[in-house]
Amino acid sequence: MRIAIAQLNLTIGAFDAIFHKIEAAAEKAQAGGASLLCLSELVTCGYPPRDLLLRTDFVQANLKLLARVAALSSEDFAILLGYAEPRKPGPGKDLYNAAALCLGGSAIQSTHKSLLPTYDVFDESRYFEPGEEPEPMELFGRKLGVTLCEDIWNEPGFVPQGGYDKDPVEVLVRKGADLLINLSASPFHLGKRAERQSLLKTQCLKHQLPLVYANQVGANDELIFDGCSLVLNEEGEVMARALSFEEDLLLVDLPSPGKAMVPQRMEPIYDHPPAEAVHALTLGLRDYVEKCGFEKVLLGLSGGIDSALTAAIAVRALSKEQVLGVGMPGPYSSQGSVDDARALARHLGIAFELLPIDEPFSAFLQTLSPLFAGLAEDVTEENLQARIRGVLLMALSNKFGHLLLTTGNKSETSVGYCTLYGDMNGGLAVISDVPKTLVYDCARWLNREREVIPEATIQKPPSAELRPGQTDQDSLPPYDVLDPILEAFVEEGKSAKEIVDRGFDEGLVARVIGMVTRAEYKRRQAAPGLRITSKAFGVGRRYPIAASTKSLL
Amino acid sequence: MRIAIAQLNLTIGAFDAIFHKIEAAAEKAQAGGASLLCLSELVTCGYPPRDLLLRTDFVQANLKLLARVAALSSEDFAILLGYAEPRKPGPGKDLYNAAALCLGGSAIQSTHKSLLPTYDVFDESRYFEPGEEPEPMELFGRKLGVTLCEDIWNEPGFVPQGGYDKDPVEVLVRKGADLLINLSASPFHLGKRAERQSLLKTQCLKHQLPLVYANQVGANDELIFDGCSLVLNEEGEVMARALSFEEDLLLVDLPSPGKAMVPQRMEPIYDHPPAEAVHALTLGLRDYVEKCGFEKVLLGLSGGIDSALTAAIAVRALSKEQVLGVGMPGPYSSQGSVDDARALARHLGIAFELLPIDEPFSAFLQTLSPLFAGLAEDVTEENLQARIRGVLLMALSNKFGHLLLTTGNKSETSVGYCTLYGDMNGGLAVISDVPKTLVYDCARWLNREREVIPEATIQKPPSAELRPGQTDQDSLPPYDVLDPILEAFVEEGKSAKEIVDRGFDEGLVARVIGMVTRAEYKRRQAAPGLRITSKAFGVGRRYPIAASTKSLL
Repeated sequence: MRIAIAQLNLTIGAFDAIFHKIEAAAEKAQAGGASLLCLSELVTCGYPPRDLLLRTDFVQANLKLLARVAALSSEDFAILLGYAEPRKPGPGKDLYNAAALCLGGSAIQSTHKSLLPTYDVFDESRYFEPGEEPEPMELFGRKLGVTLCEDIWNEPGFVPQGGYDKDPVEVLVRKGADLLINLSASPFHLGKRAERQSLLKTQCLKHQLPLVYANQVGANDELIFDGCSLVLNEEGEVMARALSFEEDLLLVDLPSPGKAMVPQRMEPIYDHPPAEAVHALTLGLRDYVEKCGFEKVLLGLSGGIDSALTAAIAVRALSKEQVLGVGMPGPYSSQGSVDDARALARHLGIAFELLPIDEPFSAFLQTLSPLFAGLAEDVTEENLQARIRGVLLMALSNKFGHLLLTTGNKSETSVGYCTLYGDMNGGLAVISDVPKTLVYDCARWLNREREVIPEATIQKPPSAELRPGQTDQDSLPPYDVLDPILEAFVEEGKSAKEIVDRGFDEGLVARVIGMVTRAEYKRRQAAPGLRITSKAFGVGRRYPIAASTKSLL
Repeated sequence: MRIAIAQLNLTIGAFDAIFHKIEAAAEKAQAGGASLLCLSELVTCGYPPRDLLLRTDFVQANLKLLARVAALSSEDFAILLGYAEPRKPGPGKDLYNAAALCLGGSAIQSTHKSLLPTYDVFDESRYFEPGEEPEPMELFGRKLGVTLCEDIWNEPGFVPQGGYDKDPVEVLVRKGADLLINLSASPFHLGKRAERQSLLKTQCLKHQLPLVYANQVGANDELIFDGCSLVLNEEGEVMARALSFEEDLLLVDLPSPGKAMVPQRMEPIYDHPPAEAVHALTLGLRDYVEKCGFEKVLLGLSGGIDSALTAAIAVRALSKEQVLGVGMPGPYSSQGSVDDARALARHLGIAFELLPIDEPFSAFLQTLSPLFAGLAEDVTEENLQARIRGVLLMALSNKFGHLLLTTGNKSETSVGYCTLYGDMNGGLAVISDVPKTLVYDCARWLNREREVIPEATIQKPPSAELRPGQTDQDSLPPYDVLDPILEAFVEEGKSAKEIVDRGFDEGLVARVIGMVTRAEYKRRQAAPGLRITSKAFGVGRRYPIAASTKSLL
């Protein structure tokens, strides 16, 4: 039996475009001799549709698409795909997160996701009712054990908190399934692919069955889906692997039950964190720009490493012709910074404009002077410079229709070392989930063959250049100390005491946690940021603003 | 049996302050002769704690507080309160949303919320496991049927979608409960109190039992809790009602089972929508300011009705000494607008400063001229003016430590008739859930005895004054047409066809829906807005940005 796995890059709700992608995949699968095409979870609308699922018009459009896809199947060509299935009126949510097996032109059997992730970025209990006990699907003499994403994750160490009290995989195996198939929309984060492969291996070994894993690819807002669809044999060895971060159609020959599977197409994965991060962010940026209908992007180039990395990713994602860099020197900018920004633009081959902020800065100080007379300069004047830059960039964005990218990293986003309505301006926060230490690693990785990011940018001490002689370390601990504290507090959810027990200074830990919690109001107004760690700010981390966090210090 | 209901206004996680409030309520209840004090849901930490519940340090602090509160009880004085209870390790979430009955110095019995709202602003399945079948709590010869908030809402018409397949109230009654007690944290929206009272009446009549309803009061970020705790007799008649939008301790005598209850203290409710809205927003603004630790607020006064209403609410919430109004006339501002802003400040008795934007505007145009040469003026120059105002206001906020209030209404927030990083700047969006037509109603209600908001502000056609002769109706349909379309689409989730069927023009409906969906990116970066309708933007409405919404048109 030859199967095809199509990992498609979908725009949520773009039903016609989705159909055309599925149709092309079906043609290619059939031309390749496949008798079954596996598509990803909720492929009829793209994942995650979020509250669009609460709209009956949206759900109806997804059903119409299901019917169109079913019509592509025939007596000897089946299609297995995820969709949203309305339930009969009654207690519980209105929908199932479902998979349909289409054969002979129509959907002949469906199954419902049993385990609904409701943590981190997932809100599935908001929309779906869990499925009842699943049944295997009979197809061409085989019994398919079909599950959806989370359904296969209920193994110790792989789900948060206590997991679930059901195991749909076990049920399917008990009922005679001889091939496991999982349709997923499993978002990427660093280390996720190793974790996922380890989980899939566990399932294969436990049930001594091969497993077909079909994952979505592409980015939707904050979430990046890496594709990397897999086929494993009953020993949990990977026998075929699709591309990562790209659309792909993977054709795989499955032997009859009991016969050994042979290794087939095996695409590489990037398991070096900076390489993985850059590939993921490249896809995330490209998809946000294209799915929002923009043709070009712009960003401020300060000569620092954050904007340099963001610009380099933008050029990888789009083309050098689609990226505009803008230098906006202020009274405390060094000539070196302008030179570094210009050198970066030259290395990348992008357009570069210089807009000094001195005149607006003077005009604001003049306008404010009746109220500020006699008061010392403070962070106000620093923020003013950042905000003037933000206004200039938005003026260019408005005039030319370019999407503004914002360039803050995760370390500064965590502690609030950034200016709301200033350097935080932009439609997409490209590296807001990249800790500063990883920003450096990414820059060095990009420079592995030739100097893309100027060495001076990498070497000099980081500075916002908003007052004379300023460096980040005037306000923050060194990043190689700060980042592990942030990782423990934000990603791992550790308490102050647990972090101190790792060897960090008690006062410093309290100071960092205080900064993180006080900056919640800034992050609430931040641009959506591409998620590449297991806990990003944004939809997956929901903290109150008006709260006392003294108990956490 | 005399009981006390304490409705307290809590800052999330302010454990010591919460204890002192509970302690004071316990003293007052005992002094008033009560033998049972009822507190609200999750009173040990304040509702909603959101992802703080995922932190073990936070949960431990809530347990310590429970022990301190339990120690306030005695052999003849019981305390019933909501808290977060850790579960034994095993499948499912780590916590119950629980209520404890404290007697003789310790918690003697607990019960767990069975129905976990996971829709709109509620994410309870993210944190909690549903409770098993509840048991009545025996106290002083009575059998208390104790439930938590959503547990009593599973009646047709009162819960979204299909409701739940369990009814904890019925279970408790079957097991002999002779008094229903519900501990709640039930957020306010317009019409909610009538709905809630109708629901409670249904429960009383169905089970022929009296019901004690203890609700939280106060605002936490977007959510406003109105208090308005109630006691109803077995016929569902309200026998006692606590204050709305204020802390209160309500003492009520409950007769022995079978005896008739007599009417007791009955505080008024404001059921005129503008009055209700103003009271709710006043509380919402005050709490956000105080719980975030600010002493003063500032806002731009354009002479228009949105900033006028916001300023009037700020003065009600705080004092006139705590509010600063700033007029920032630009090249297209009329003298009338400056006069109206000044008159408003005079009526309210607040400080007023004038900061013309001409100099920064010229400086920006000058700086941008090399890139803008030969290009026509467009929305760029309009946004520039809005953003200069935003920068000026943030400079004052930074220099003086005042919280900036943003003044956009729901109609413009819906269609994106607002400038990101401009007039959207601010820490709190006071009226972002108030449709423009209701803004006018609120202004007229505030003016019912004397002119608070200048009549000229109410009478003149609304305008952003960002280009010569501009009015809102150049870009938008009249508000009395726009608002019902928005209500149908945003609040009720109706499809375009359903809205057209209500008698609206098809092209107009498509245009409005298109504007709403395209503005999603702006709202994602909006300040938290106080919720007063059944569907506000913010945590309760989760839409993707990079999506095709053609299927909705």
